[in-house]
Amino acid sequence: MATSDSPKDPVAEQIRTVLDGRWAEVRQGLRADPDFPVAVPGLELGLDEYRARTLASCHELAGSDFVLGAVPPEQGGTGDLGGSVTGLEMLGHGDLSVMIKAGVQFGLFGGAISNLGTARHHEAYLQDALQLDLPGAYAMTETGHGSDVQSLLTTATHDPDTDELVIHSPSPAARKDYIGGAARDARMAAVFAQLVVGGESHGVHCVLVPIRDEQGRAMPGVTITDCGPKMGLRGVDNGRLMFDGVRVPRQNLLNRYGDIDDDGTYTSPIESRNRRFFTMLGTLVRGRITVGAGAGAAARSALTVAVRYGLRRTQFSYPDGEHEVVILDYLGHQRTLLPRLARSYALALAQNALIARMHDLTVGESTGEDAHRELEARAAGLKAVTTWHATDTIQACREACGGAGYMSANRFADLKADTDVFTTFEGDNTILLQLVAKGMLTNYQADFADLDTSGAILFGARQLTTSVIEHTIGGSLIQRLISGASGRDGDDALRDRGGQVAFFADRESHLTESLAMRLRRAGDDESKSFSVFNDAQDHLLEAARAHMDRVVLEAFVTAVEEAPQGPGRDLLAKVCDLHVLSTVEEHRAWYLEHGRLSASQAKGVIARVNELCQELRPHADTLVDAFGIPDEWLTTEMMADLASF
Amino acid sequence: MATSDSPKDPVAEQIRTVLDGRWAEVRQGLRADPDFPVAVPGLELGLDEYRARTLASCHELAGSDFVLGAVPPEQGGTGDLGGSVTGLEMLGHGDLSVMIKAGVQFGLFGGAISNLGTARHHEAYLQDALQLDLPGAYAMTETGHGSDVQSLLTTATHDPDTDELVIHSPSPAARKDYIGGAARDARMAAVFAQLVVGGESHGVHCVLVPIRDEQGRAMPGVTITDCGPKMGLRGVDNGRLMFDGVRVPRQNLLNRYGDIDDDGTYTSPIESRNRRFFTMLGTLVRGRITVGAGAGAAARSALTVAVRYGLRRTQFSYPDGEHEVVILDYLGHQRTLLPRLARSYALALAQNALIARMHDLTVGESTGEDAHRELEARAAGLKAVTTWHATDTIQACREACGGAGYMSANRFADLKADTDVFTTFEGDNTILLQLVAKGMLTNYQADFADLDTSGAILFGARQLTTSVIEHTIGGSLIQRLISGASGRDGDDALRDRGGQVAFFADRESHLTESLAMRLRRAGDDESKSFSVFNDAQDHLLEAARAHMDRVVLEAFVTAVEEAPQGPGRDLLAKVCDLHVLSTVEEHRAWYLEHGRLSASQAKGVIARVNELCQELRPHADTLVDAFGIPDEWLTTEMMADLASF
Repeated sequence: MATSDSPKDPVAEQIRTVLDGRWAEVRQGLRADPDFPVAVPGLELGLDEYRARTLASCHELAGSDFVLGAVPPEQGGTGDLGGSVTGLEMLGHGDLSVMIKAGVQFGLFGGAISNLGTARHHEAYLQDALQLDLPGAYAMTETGHGSDVQSLLTTATHDPDTDELVIHSPSPAARKDYIGGAARDARMAAVFAQLVVGGESHGVHCVLVPIRDEQGRAMPGVTITDCGPKMGLRGVDNGRLMFDGVRVPRQNLLNRYGDIDDDGTYTSPIESRNRRFFTMLGTLVRGRITVGAGAGAAARSALTVAVRYGLRRTQFSYPDGEHEVVILDYLGHQRTLLPRLARSYALALAQNALIARMHDLTVGESTGEDAHRELEARAAGLKAVTTWHATDTIQACREACGGAGYMSANRFADLKADTDVFTTFEGDNTILLQLVAKGMLTNYQADFADLDTSGAILFGARQLTTSVIEHTIGGSLIQRLISGASGRDGDDALRDRGGQVAFFADRESHLTESLAMRLRRAGDDESKSFSVFNDAQDHLLEAARAHMDRVVLEAFVTAVEEAPQGPGRDLLAKVCDLHVLSTVEEHRAWYLEHGRLSASQAKGVIARVNELCQELRPHADTLVDAFGIPDEWLTTEMMADLASF
Repeated sequence: MATSDSPKDPVAEQIRTVLDGRWAEVRQGLRADPDFPVAVPGLELGLDEYRARTLASCHELAGSDFVLGAVPPEQGGTGDLGGSVTGLEMLGHGDLSVMIKAGVQFGLFGGAISNLGTARHHEAYLQDALQLDLPGAYAMTETGHGSDVQSLLTTATHDPDTDELVIHSPSPAARKDYIGGAARDARMAAVFAQLVVGGESHGVHCVLVPIRDEQGRAMPGVTITDCGPKMGLRGVDNGRLMFDGVRVPRQNLLNRYGDIDDDGTYTSPIESRNRRFFTMLGTLVRGRITVGAGAGAAARSALTVAVRYGLRRTQFSYPDGEHEVVILDYLGHQRTLLPRLARSYALALAQNALIARMHDLTVGESTGEDAHRELEARAAGLKAVTTWHATDTIQACREACGGAGYMSANRFADLKADTDVFTTFEGDNTILLQLVAKGMLTNYQADFADLDTSGAILFGARQLTTSVIEHTIGGSLIQRLISGASGRDGDDALRDRGGQVAFFADRESHLTESLAMRLRRAGDDESKSFSVFNDAQDHLLEAARAHMDRVVLEAFVTAVEEAPQGPGRDLLAKVCDLHVLSTVEEHRAWYLEHGRLSASQAKGVIARVNELCQELRPHADTLVDAFGIPDEWLTTEMMADLASF
């Protein structure tokens, strides 16, 4: 194991450099920073104590480089958005309550002010939010509506007599629910509500609403309750908010995309109500990116612990009766951990590419609405696949450590409980994959922003005849690899990198085109549009997964190709092979059904996964060292026990 | 929803009768028993308080009918073993800490005394154990050895001078670990240790060792530590035990299968050391059966909550814009919940058949060692597949309830955390599946009991040419169905029940025969035996899973066939179809690779699963009502919220 003092494994270092990517300096700085609040709390901390501790950790982060990175220089930040999200990702190796609470305060609350507000909000609130002098909440979800944000019930009604907005929760279903910060700390909430001006509703907008006074008492008309105990993230004070005709000045409307002028008229730079809504939501993409990043980090923490345990723990003897078998020498154990390790590599590199893309699109010149839609779809898809991967991987790692894995002192209890909600918050994963499918069918054309998801999908299906795969990551490099591939048939295709990518892309194209054909066949009968869409939902989700498989693989391949020659790159290439082969193995029924693999080729894929597991086994330690998680961040009781034997 | 007051759904009642099975009376009695300690504790109970509460609940159970059922009449019990395990299964719908602590006290500690001890132990301790006047622990697992019980390091050495046994932990790896009851309550432990008599080791035996005095202080030489916080099962006081030359009278040896006579000589009715070991362990099969039963119960609780939520919760509107869609109307949501619901039916019925078999074998005349080995293998396999099913299903149900599913008040937090360890305790699932494979290759012949698992598997492989599928559940009925099946080819085969069973059995036979062939091909070179076994481990595990799929299906089919004609049976038959088709869908790559399904037939299976989901959707409420879990046992905050909208 690499510790700061032990001699470094040069291969691990080479690979770590690749994984660290563009914001390597941020990562290295945080690894070496003794004040980075990454330590996990003592066991069985009381709820109040845990919440206080989490808030204190967020105060340590307040105003730091990576918090200021979230905001452009003209608003008082550094504009290093990529560094900012990378910093939050690093927090994901520690106490996830801190990561989430920091994400809510600086990313969501601060982000809403920064992205949806204008100068008056930036000047009044932004520094206070980033310095945590103004603890905030992001009040979007309601008890009755989570995924369907457009149907939120809370209203913000303009009263022309007083020039105020009246915030109101008309029913129990309108209660703001699961709101981080609401139960204990937040003094102001960014409240999403239907904006009603002159008796007319203009759809969901965001309004800053004070919810507590300086003494922490609820403001008049605001009812605050505590969500109480949750499965995990115990340090985050989730609560509920009900508003009973709460009045705030009109100026509290975050008015970048929709405003009320002095004579009480609603105006917006975006005419279409739907497009306005999606544009507002789109600015908040970094929340999803952060959740995906944190999930990936948590999965890498779990794998590091489980692989190191598997390399030390023995059980049952060799037939010679003299030596016990190291459990990672069992093929079954390798199959549990190593394909998930390979996939963690793929997802980490895809995450890096996504962060870079977000950074460039935000910081640089705007490259048009299509590019933003593509980013949003990719962020949605990567969040979905990474959070599911994390849930699955942490579970597998827990089981791989047996009874020891169940003890809280060995980290999996918190990793599992804290990350569990990632699959459904910041967008339910299934809904997010539908968003991906929408993008695939419409090629991110903004023209479809006026349709809801199912409408856009059906409309897109009518237009699409041949899907065009855009190699969004490493475009020309990927194109060159595909062109240079030796064969296109089963084993051959999988033997070289270009063939592997083409194999994934072919699955994506076929699933997309057949989906479009299937949806088109149903005709234009509007009354059937729900059943047409619904009957194909499994196909649609499969197409979205296939798309993400291809996008993720391209990120992995690009990183391997761009890495400097050497043993690090060679090992990385083998990890990429395992990722490819185990993904194909998982979907081999599809490849068989569609004549892409013969029966014997499919069996060959299984055999090749076994071989690759056994070939990578001697490098397992190097591969988790390369994640670059400092030992001090991952101390466990079970490793100390093994050392005492 | 069925409440005790609401009019019953007759179809749900018909199906419940089938699910309740042979011990329906026990189930009905406990459902109506207001003192049955099934209530879950208030949220955020402190650890000490929770442990005290759990002990108190066990006191309520002490001496009750189903506790006394675990012990035969000649030992002072009622001998209703089936009723006893069924009662523990019902506890599985409530607080799982109570189920596990009760299982440890009455099933494991009491069971060790009953099954491994003789009259002197029965008279001295058994009633006290069953009445909880003597809180006990079952000290098998050590920090260094869990699955490999034969390699335990703790020693029990006979001292002829004092005629005592000296219990000793020679190293940190010998520490007894994760021992339920050890941290707080247990006064005596059933300690598994290498028995050394006259300087010779006779393998693992069990000795009763007092660990605390009446005042709760650790006995001299016994060091007790607390395992501290765990992922779940917070009410169970798991602890660690170290023994430093602790002396107990020779009579404390549980001596049914191995004894030390008055002149200090070791004797045993079983000559072979290996067979003796497996016979001793075999008597403890009910622990595994109970864990599988509890896992199944927990999965049914989770499905009941998630299905009812899915039938009330709406999200997104139909294209008419007026109505919101009930989320269980989405195909994706149906696919998440309904195949798992069908599988829960299959596993519940297989569990009933297993409990009945155990009961008959224990209570009736012994029907030979083979029958016991078959029971052990089936118990091992069903525990593995049911606990994995529970982990997967509870997770899916949590996600199906979104953010609400994450709140502790909605039950999934505890269900998930409490059941998590089931996949690795009472036998790691992977090891258990290897045990199943061993039985498949050796046909449970006792001759192989002298070989360890890998040895037996290799030996069995050398003998096996054609595997013989024994239809252990509903034998002649199943045989008749298979003979009467119309076709054997893809779709046709899956259209009638006999064909479905044959389709599963064919997969099992082929996997078993090809495994045997593969292992044989490697020859007799002993030095290669580990690598031969290890290289085929994935194949071996797959064969074991296929075996369990067939065994579980036969239980389901038998229950359907034996049910009285009527709408309940018709609906049950459709659930069975979904179980069959979704299982085939999951393994369709194998069926394609082995020419059992054509590509178009495989696609047909996917389409048929979708159809069955949609056909069963209107009956979802009936199907969870039929689980017969009283509403009062499953109260959740989120259902109350939905009712308030």
